[in-house]
Parts: sequence; C-alpha cells; structure tokens
Amino acid sequence: MYTEIEVTVRYAETDKMGITHHSVYPIWYELARTEIIKNIGITYTEMEKQGIMLPLAELNCKYMEPSTYEDKLRIRVWISKLTPARIVFNYETYKVETEKLIATGSTVHAFASSKTLKPLNFKKVFPEYYEKIEKILL
Amino acid sequence: MYTEIEVTVRYAETDKMGITHHSVYPIWYELARTEIIKNIGITYTEMEKQGIMLPLAELNCKYMEPSTYEDKLRIRVWISKLTPARIVFNYETYKVETEKLIATGSTVHAFASSKTLKPLNFKKVFPEYYEKIEKILL
Amino acid sequence: MYTEIEVTVRYAETDKMGITHHSVYPIWYELARTEIIKNIGITYTEMEKQGIMLPLAELNCKYMEPSTYEDKLRIRVWISKLTPARIVFNYETYKVETEKLIATGSTVHAFASSKTLKPLNFKKVFPEYYEKIEKILL
Amino acid sequence: MYTEIEVTVRYAETDKMGITHHSVYPIWYELARTEIIKNIGITYTEMEKQGIMLPLAELNCKYMEPSTYEDKLRIRVWISKLTPARIVFNYETYKVETEKLIATGSTVHAFASSKTLKPLNFKKVFPEYYEKIEKILL
Repeated sequence: MYTEIEVTVRYAETDKMGITHHSVYPIWYELARTEIIKNIGITYTEMEKQGIMLPLAELNCKYMEPSTYEDKLRIRVWISKLTPARIVFNYETYKVETEKLIATGSTVHAFASSKTLKPLNFKKVFPEYYEKIEKILL
Repeated sequence: MYTEIEVTVRYAETDKMGITHHSVYPIWYELARTEIIKNIGITYTEMEKQGIMLPLAELNCKYMEPSTYEDKLRIRVWISKLTPARIVFNYETYKVETEKLIATGSTVHAFASSKTLKPLNFKKVFPEYYEKIEKILL
Repeated sequence: MYTEIEVTVRYAETDKMGITHHSVYPIWYELARTEIIKNIGITYTEMEKQGIMLPLAELNCKYMEPSTYEDKLRIRVWISKLTPARIVFNYETYKVETEKLIATGSTVHAFASSKTLKPLNFKKVFPEYYEKIEKILL
Repeated sequence: MYTEIEVTVRYAETDKMGITHHSVYPIWYELARTEIIKNIGITYTEMEKQGIMLPLAELNCKYMEPSTYEDKLRIRVWISKLTPARIVFNYETYKVETEKLIATGSTVHAFASSKTLKPLNFKKVFPEYYEKIEKILL
C-alpha cells in the first residue's frame, strides 16, 4: 500500500541558497509516516498512548533536484520491511507541477516503549497491529 | 544582572532572502534564558525535574537590521519582572563585529507544573529560587 | 477580508514539554500571509520577482493555550494597516476541534527592495497592489 | 585531518519524545562542515562569494543513542573522498560527559555554481582549494 501526502514548501524551510534546506525532507517524511499509520487504522498519538514509540535508527536521503518556496510536492510513502524489532519506511518526493522525482529516502525505526525508550517486541506486544502492517508491505 | 551569550548564525537558520529567518531569534532567546538561569545557580533541566516549567505566554520581537550566515551575535538577557505567577525576560542582540544593536525582544512566561502544565505559585512552592531571582532583577 | 488556513501540528514542531514550540507559530503566520497575498491576486514568489520583499520589523505573539502533535489548527489572518512604508498583519489561531482561540499575534513588515533590502515606497512603486490591499483592510 | 566542534542541545531541538529530533543532526553536521572548511583556510561564505556552492546530494545518518536538552555533544568531522564533481564528509557525534559515540553520518555534496546551481568542475575552477583538501583526506 502506498500513501501520498502533499506539502507546499514554506518560506522558513528555504535557506540562503534559495532552495529548501535538506534537513526539512526528514520532517516531511515524518508527516508521510503519520499519514500511512493513520491509513492503517491508528494514529501515531494513539500508538504513543498505548506505549509504543518509533525512534529513528537510520535515515537515508538522496537529493536529485532542489525544491523551493511555494513548490507543491507529493510525497509517496510505503513500508518495505517489518520485524518484531524494526520497521522500514521508504519515500519518494515528486514535484506536483512536473511529476518529476526530486528526492528519495528511507528511515529505519526501532520499536520502543514510550515510557522507558527501551526496545520492545512489537509482534508480541501488539500482534494485531503487526498483522495489519504485514499485510500492506511493499 | 546581565547575562550574555554568543551565537553564530547557522546556514539552516537563513532563508531565501539571504538573511536569518525571524523565527530563529526566539530560539536564541531561549538559549540566553538557559544561560541566565544557570548563572542564578540552577539548570533549566533541574527546574523541570523539580516540577517547574516556564511555558511562553507572550513574545515580542523588534528587528532593526538583518543578520546572516556566519555572523557572530551577542545576546544580552536580563530579568525585568517577577511575580508569583509570571516572569519577564528582556533581550538585546548585537553584531559582535560592529557592536551594533540589531534586534530587541521580551518574553513573558507563566510558572507551570511540569506534570499538569497548570499554573503554579512560584513564590510559595520555590521560595528560595524566588528570592534569588528577585535579587538580580533589572 | 479574512483569510483562513489550516495546519496540523508536526511531530518535529513539538518540544520536550510535549507541546508545540512557540517559535513555530511565526512560521505558521508566514503561511497565512502567503495565502492572504495569494487571495489578493498575487503570489509572494511573484512579488519577490517584481522586486518587493517584506522583511519583518516586529513580531508579537500571545499564547493562551498550548497545542500539540496532530492537533488541527485554523489560522485566521487579516491586514489591519497599510502605509507606503509598512504593512501590519494580524493572526488568530483556533483549535479546529473545539473552536477555541489559543493564540493571537501580529507582524509589522517593511517594504524593501529584493535586490538591496533597502526601504521602498510601496505606494509609488506598485500603486495597483497598494490599492488592492487598501480595499481589504480590516 | 579531523575537526571537532561542540554543540549543546537546544530546547527547541527536542521533541515530545523528550529527545533531540533526528532532523537536527544534519544541521549540526553543517556546523561541523563550516568549521572544517574554515580550518582548511577558507570560509564557506567566501566560497559562495567566489561562486561555489555545495548542495547536498546524499545524507546518511545512524542514531545509536538519543541526546536531549542541555546535553553537550562533540561532533567530529573529516573528509573521506574528493573528486572534481563531489566531496564526502563523515561525522561522529559523542556525548562529552560519557565519551560515548551516539550517532554517525555522512554527506555527499556536489560542487555547483552559486549563480546557476549547475555542476562545476571544482578541480579545474579552484585547483588550489582542490589541492588543499586532497592533503587532508582521511
């Protein structure tokens, strides 16, 4: 299952090079994750309340072309891997106007307890969610 | 009592106008607050552990001249008012190279419980801190 | 004329207090300005190309209640003052779910040349835009 | 040649998980790059004036342990690769208090013209800088 969100580049997200600062893309990827989790049938806020957090273990980004202020971008996200300890999200960023792919990325997250931040066996603790996510892997 | 800190403008803090984005100054002011609180003899981390938070109630900024990437700035902070419910910090930002005043600001904070975020009578709950701060008002 | 935009609080916009960091509101206000300018019939990108910039001269924010991750907020913006040298925008932030007003703000901007960042007589240089804005003042 | 900088985690850099948001590390890495370039004998501001920019092509981060507000961190940076078209920086982030390595990263940058943002043969256009950097590769 793919999920797509749209973002418009904010003025504050640009830098003096005149383009979007590279540190903003991980923030957009987070928005995309929020959305795909919602589409699975849970909100991330709800997950945190139930005791699960997804701290980042790894972040990989490729920037092929810049974007800038007022550009409309479409971010496609999908989950490519799930283990009891980890989950991998993938991202593609397109310019809406030209349909051009301008950036790709992936993030690896650990399942952690929202109280202790310690690792948590997601499959054991939340078997229903685990199953739901397994079904939408790409 | 004045406290002064120095910051150097980060690339990510600039925008496509080529200057520091205005939303960055409140973040620097926060650094200056951290420092003046430390100089009073407590760390803000410690305050939070003891149950006090200082959520912002009001923020006022004046921008006289822009700053940009790699500019060294000196931020002067002082506390101008203290009541059992509120505290007011004032800020002046200078360019180190020219000694020119480029921005001023003030923030008003409520004393709140770090557990409930509800108001807290700072004078009653932490009389020692209250007295310490009273002595350095300007 | 009022313009309204909706934003959803991003995870990265929260801080360890568990609420939206106060420096994020000015960034949302910027989004609201972009939108009201677009509703007047121009884009801010277009304005910059035509040689006008709107550097901030003053920022005032009041925070009545916090917001947090995934909160949907509605930001209402209007222009309250226009002179050949300056323009004043006003903002109100509401929680969509409760319709509660949680923050207010205003920003004062100078009209400046996008090449030199020097002041510019907006009325003289862009009389048509000036007239358009005058008509929607509140 | 290694270069090291120290940063202290800002309040605004934390998120509601109580830890530094992952998007902040790339911003610190940028500070480290600024410093190593300065140690080579040029400032990045100077480079931009001379017509060179270093837009990011790739960003890779590993997060082993979280950091939080007021943590002092030491970031070690070095350049591991240089070609006429690209340059690779590597990063290690340590907690100053414990000397523990908490994050690693690398960034790949293209050499681009600061006017056109198009690729630029760094070796041809700035042979002296190229030679200087070649000597400090690790």
